[in-house]
Amino acid sequence: MSLKRSTVKELLASQDLDREVLVKGWVRSRRGNKYVQFIIVNDGSTIHTIQAVAAAENFPEETLKDVGNGAAVAIRGTLVASQGKGQAVEIQATEVTVLGAADAEAYPLQKKATSLEHLRDIAHLRPRTNTFGAVLRVRHALAFAVHQYFNDHGFYYVHTPIITGSDAEGAGQMFRVTTLSADKPPLADDGSVDYTQDFFGKQTNLTVSGQLEGELAAMALGSIYTFGPTFRAENSNTARHLAEFWMIEPEVAFNELEENMDLAEDFLQSLVKYALANCADDLQFLNDQYDKELLGRLNFVVDNAFQRLTYTEAVEILKSAKQKFEFPVDWGTDLQSEHERYLVEKHFKKPVILTNYPKEIKAFYMKLDDDGRTVQAMDVLFPGIGEIIGGSAREADLHKLETRMAEMHVPTEDLEWYLDTRRFGSAPHAGFGLGFERLVLFVTGMSNIRDVIPFPRYPKNAAF
Amino acid sequence: MSLKRSTVKELLASQDLDREVLVKGWVRSRRGNKYVQFIIVNDGSTIHTIQAVAAAENFPEETLKDVGNGAAVAIRGTLVASQGKGQAVEIQATEVTVLGAADAEAYPLQKKATSLEHLRDIAHLRPRTNTFGAVLRVRHALAFAVHQYFNDHGFYYVHTPIITGSDAEGAGQMFRVTTLSADKPPLADDGSVDYTQDFFGKQTNLTVSGQLEGELAAMALGSIYTFGPTFRAENSNTARHLAEFWMIEPEVAFNELEENMDLAEDFLQSLVKYALANCADDLQFLNDQYDKELLGRLNFVVDNAFQRLTYTEAVEILKSAKQKFEFPVDWGTDLQSEHERYLVEKHFKKPVILTNYPKEIKAFYMKLDDDGRTVQAMDVLFPGIGEIIGGSAREADLHKLETRMAEMHVPTEDLEWYLDTRRFGSAPHAGFGLGFERLVLFVTGMSNIRDVIPFPRYPKNAAF
Repeated sequence: MSLKRSTVKELLASQDLDREVLVKGWVRSRRGNKYVQFIIVNDGSTIHTIQAVAAAENFPEETLKDVGNGAAVAIRGTLVASQGKGQAVEIQATEVTVLGAADAEAYPLQKKATSLEHLRDIAHLRPRTNTFGAVLRVRHALAFAVHQYFNDHGFYYVHTPIITGSDAEGAGQMFRVTTLSADKPPLADDGSVDYTQDFFGKQTNLTVSGQLEGELAAMALGSIYTFGPTFRAENSNTARHLAEFWMIEPEVAFNELEENMDLAEDFLQSLVKYALANCADDLQFLNDQYDKELLGRLNFVVDNAFQRLTYTEAVEILKSAKQKFEFPVDWGTDLQSEHERYLVEKHFKKPVILTNYPKEIKAFYMKLDDDGRTVQAMDVLFPGIGEIIGGSAREADLHKLETRMAEMHVPTEDLEWYLDTRRFGSAPHAGFGLGFERLVLFVTGMSNIRDVIPFPRYPKNAAF
Repeated sequence: MSLKRSTVKELLASQDLDREVLVKGWVRSRRGNKYVQFIIVNDGSTIHTIQAVAAAENFPEETLKDVGNGAAVAIRGTLVASQGKGQAVEIQATEVTVLGAADAEAYPLQKKATSLEHLRDIAHLRPRTNTFGAVLRVRHALAFAVHQYFNDHGFYYVHTPIITGSDAEGAGQMFRVTTLSADKPPLADDGSVDYTQDFFGKQTNLTVSGQLEGELAAMALGSIYTFGPTFRAENSNTARHLAEFWMIEPEVAFNELEENMDLAEDFLQSLVKYALANCADDLQFLNDQYDKELLGRLNFVVDNAFQRLTYTEAVEILKSAKQKFEFPVDWGTDLQSEHERYLVEKHFKKPVILTNYPKEIKAFYMKLDDDGRTVQAMDVLFPGIGEIIGGSAREADLHKLETRMAEMHVPTEDLEWYLDTRRFGSAPHAGFGLGFERLVLFVTGMSNIRDVIPFPRYPKNAAF
């Protein structure tokens, strides 16, 4: 008779004991004595393991020789209340099948030598560790919470293009996408590369943001969001930068700055609440193992209304702060991480939303304030991490937008389609961007962004 | 007092009449006489419009001169039961504000001249049409249903890399991703392009599939899925090909072919059911406007268990069919769309899953059958569309896998990480790929794949 496989998660939560069960997973360890062997199995469904008990009389040592760390096994037996500490149930094994062995010497994932740095080199196997299992399950939960939040609030998910013909936003260095020969590209009469012969008939790049296309969709569907990969070809070898990362960008027609802040605050708090409610085991593990203040910080964000103030007010606070900063603060300069963290962690002791930044340090599409000096930007600042969200009300006035583009040397030729939203049925609208890995970094308490994405891309690394 | 904006969808469903409401949206039309004007507004929240009634005594014609097709407006008034036919409620307007006009002559989205082909040229505005509003809302609903289905079934969402260093699967022509100079790339001593100086230190491409990386994750987390963009640099100017499209790829450790079929069938039926339940208005519109058999076809898929048979059995059926085919059928050849559709629409009259294809026409990673001639592939065939899913049980045996790779000239050097899953704790596993736009095409009944993605990418086109 065929018995359906149960996951470890299902078995650990089961009240239905003394029945035959079948579990399949990877051996985390095996120990015991000459009377009994304990086989500890994980199958990825939870951070927890289940213990299978194999009596020596039924399982002579030679039948278990391949049941070592990393081996894939199928274990059939009776689910019973556990005698030992640390688990409620265990399996009295009646059948142990090795699906695939893992040579103890050769297996790259040894119990020792599992520094996070080393694990990056074996990123194809690190999801089998407690740490990366936990991080990837939290990552999943957060991604799902994003979709659920927006679906519940009447937003439509829009897939903005990954390959783009415009280098519009100027958000950073771009990767070129091409099918032209690398060593002998076709040349135009003037000797330059003839991009009309490239796949798309012109030079194309990987997107740095879906915002502009997202605005087009919002000006038709009302409330939209994007959730897709974005790219920066910056030679930044830091713990906070990736060349390929995922971004979430909601955009709402008719929203003003105030409603944009309301959305950002409610959205972030909902995501953190969802993780606390649905990833308790994984977060507890990460809290205990890596960052004893993690759960405290997550609750801090959920429990505190975000403090809202203008950039100008923030500069005043920072200038009169007793603390010494490495970088001086003055109106018109961009704030550094040390300033943002001072505001959040020391001064207000709650998350902060800063608004109305000097127009010189923000993007062309942000709505100009009446004073002509500032724009309706908003940055959400979090403890430990600094800026987690950047957004703004958008300039809806065609003339003002064109003026800002001219001032900032943004060519309008490539963006006529964008300007059309201001020509035909323009309306106030607002949105923001949330770097998904920044969020995962915050919620898992990990310290290197390469450890919160399965296969990180950074300078000189595109392995797997 | 500030009145909160209601969406058209909320107002049309409201039982709470004779209250003051505020709606914001885009004018779809205005008509009337010298006593009263009817302003028809859509805000993207639904395919339906709401009618605002403006009495001439309160709104002299000159105050409404900019209230034309395409203009963005804010209308305040009383929500009342409608006197007219076709709508339950309407707004007795007390205030009409034009947020942004749309010059009637210049507005590219004219009532006439809205062929789907023409609308592709103004893809930045087409979401404002009934058709594309409907398609994009259905697209959203299907994407959400995908995430919800997998989350409910214990799958973890894994973001596999977009930029890849391996050209492993050989699924098609790839786009190169580079930061090297196009006209003066650095050269190695032998005169070839020196990719060690490229951003990632080697040649990189856009992914054609996340499957191989998905397998790595499944061999740790158990059940995973991907949902991300994939790319083909094929010069195919057809109604069924895109250069950039979204793919869904579940992968489940310990699943065999049978369970893989069960998953595919349940998954597809769930998605179609979700759309039928949640997009009734949009699907009705598409059914009436484009394809009178759409709803019938969707119910056909939900109501019929999928017919399962082997490729070999299918070839026998096709060879003895009375129907003349353009392409001859013989064991060993790949089936054409006409054959697939014959099986589904004529012979079985239900969706079909074909399995156990000749190994020569399938990928290297598929599990070899005992006879050594066929592999445990499975293709799901749908009415109208042919193949909608392709998948397989994977070869879990290292030796057999290496043999297949050698036979098919797949270099192992780049795939040592993939082979590691077979070296250490290998186990049966299975999965499949569903092209998201294929699914949207099927569910919306549209006939060109460029019309089911917001900003299609195809040869010589990367606009917006």
